[in-house]
Amino acid sequence: MMGRVICAGLGPGDPDLMSLRAARAIGQATHVAYFRKAGRAGQARAIVEGMLRGDAVELPMEYPVTTEIPFASPDYTNALARFYDDWAARLTQLVETTDVLVLCEGDPFFYGSFMHLHSRLQGRVPVEVIPGITGMTGCWTATGQPITWGDDVLTVLMGTLPEEDLVRHMGTADALVVMKTGRNLPKIRRALASAGRLDQAWLVERGTMPGQRVAMLAEAPEDCPYFAIVLVHGQGRRPEIAE
Amino acid sequence: MMGRVICAGLGPGDPDLMSLRAARAIGQATHVAYFRKAGRAGQARAIVEGMLRGDAVELPMEYPVTTEIPFASPDYTNALARFYDDWAARLTQLVETTDVLVLCEGDPFFYGSFMHLHSRLQGRVPVEVIPGITGMTGCWTATGQPITWGDDVLTVLMGTLPEEDLVRHMGTADALVVMKTGRNLPKIRRALASAGRLDQAWLVERGTMPGQRVAMLAEAPEDCPYFAIVLVHGQGRRPEIAE
Ligand SMILES: C[S@@+](CC[C@H](N)C(=O)[O-])C[C@H]1O[C@@H](n2cnc3c(N)ncnc32)[C@H](O)[C@@H]1O
Ligand SMILES: C[S@@+](CC[C@H](N)C(=O)[O-])C[C@H]1O[C@@H](n2cnc3c(N)ncnc32)[C@H](O)[C@@H]1O
Repeated sequence: MMGRVICAGLGPGDPDLMSLRAARAIGQATHVAYFRKAGRAGQARAIVEGMLRGDAVELPMEYPVTTEIPFASPDYTNALARFYDDWAARLTQLVETTDVLVLCEGDPFFYGSFMHLHSRLQGRVPVEVIPGITGMTGCWTATGQPITWGDDVLTVLMGTLPEEDLVRHMGTADALVVMKTGRNLPKIRRALASAGRLDQAWLVERGTMPGQRVAMLAEAPEDCPYFAIVLVHGQGRRPEIAE
Repeated sequence: MMGRVICAGLGPGDPDLMSLRAARAIGQATHVAYFRKAGRAGQARAIVEGMLRGDAVELPMEYPVTTEIPFASPDYTNALARFYDDWAARLTQLVETTDVLVLCEGDPFFYGSFMHLHSRLQGRVPVEVIPGITGMTGCWTATGQPITWGDDVLTVLMGTLPEEDLVRHMGTADALVVMKTGRNLPKIRRALASAGRLDQAWLVERGTMPGQRVAMLAEAPEDCPYFAIVLVHGQGRRPEIAE
């Protein structure tokens, strides 16, 4: 075994927001793997445009299915499991002779696809994970307002959850983040309305990326892109302005 | 008005984990402000050691009181409010002639002290916030395990909350992060035990900093430093390993 798998978190989208360590790993890599939808350039690859060595070998890992639908059908999960198995085997083989860098949007250990490779590689090859700024952090920065104060409770929800679960959790937290919006946006909107939080909700599309949009959710269109996050800021206790 | 206040998130502690943008801002700054406890060097200042210009003017902002106790007494909140008022006024004055860089551990808008300056500066001077990798992201990376999978619900709690609130929230989320541990650790431990989550909990002290320690909470000592986070990883649905 000569090499390692290094997974670099790329941050929310703006290349200037990746860590010094990730940038160095990207500039040195001879083998670069990244997930993408079939036929698409891929967001992770787009973030590192212009940063790779001219002779870097690229390994696009194309999802066999979409990742936006709930984990429902056995066919869906079987196809995905085989896909991750195959790539784990290919990376394991490559690592016999070289380091391989895997690119990951945001932070790799926070709802990242890399985790499915990580669980398969663990104990077989050395793996190093470089953390990244999460997409949600890029998104709340884009709103220009702090997400949490004092002893606020923050809850992170996936838009793929059943509506009643969303409503229940939305009612008990102070600050909210809802990810995997996309086609789930109408459901998320209804859940926020049921929980009495719709008026305070923001929608951030493509946070820190080209084409970023920030709007109050109540005034936003019915649908949104894959890279979109709903936020409700906490209003926790804070020392009042004395003047 | 000639300048701006720029707040740079420094990430969890390892200087190599700050963003390219933050590193550039730090290397260029002529005026650098940072919070610290009276008589201490300050963690934010420690992270940028060796990165500042030789002629940079340093502005240590020393807390008049500790920030680990609950927002209880009016004296406490008044002293803090005056402290933030005073520094907001000083930064506003400086910005008439220069940019001022404020250093912030982790991400500035995520339970950061900078937010209390931000709310006072808003509308008075131009403010730019550079996001950072949060302390919790550094800590879950240190455990070598993903924090959330599939449609896991993640809840972030402050150890300053009343015990019954902690128990209630710990029972409803899949993955947990508990910050502001320190002297609250015994209470956090009791709450996790009541919620049936103590056996799965990890304690990460000084994540990504010199002296980092990672342990199962049940096996850790009774007390912990200010920079310490309790984590419970989610076990969400994932495509099974097919082999
Ligand atoms: C599979 S999760 C990956 C999360 C990623 N590992 C992270 O740390 O942010 C994908 C979801 O993240 C959210 N997301 C990530 N980056 C985003 C950005 N820059 N703007 C808006 N949403 C983003 C979207 O809700 C998207 O559906
Ligand atoms: C006032 S909050 C500031 C959070 C910061 N803005 C962030 O984004 O992480 C301070 C708390 O963050 C946690 N913390 C921050 N960085 C940490 C690290 N590197 N290791 C352990 N705990 C950390 C501790 O629980 C501490 O009590």
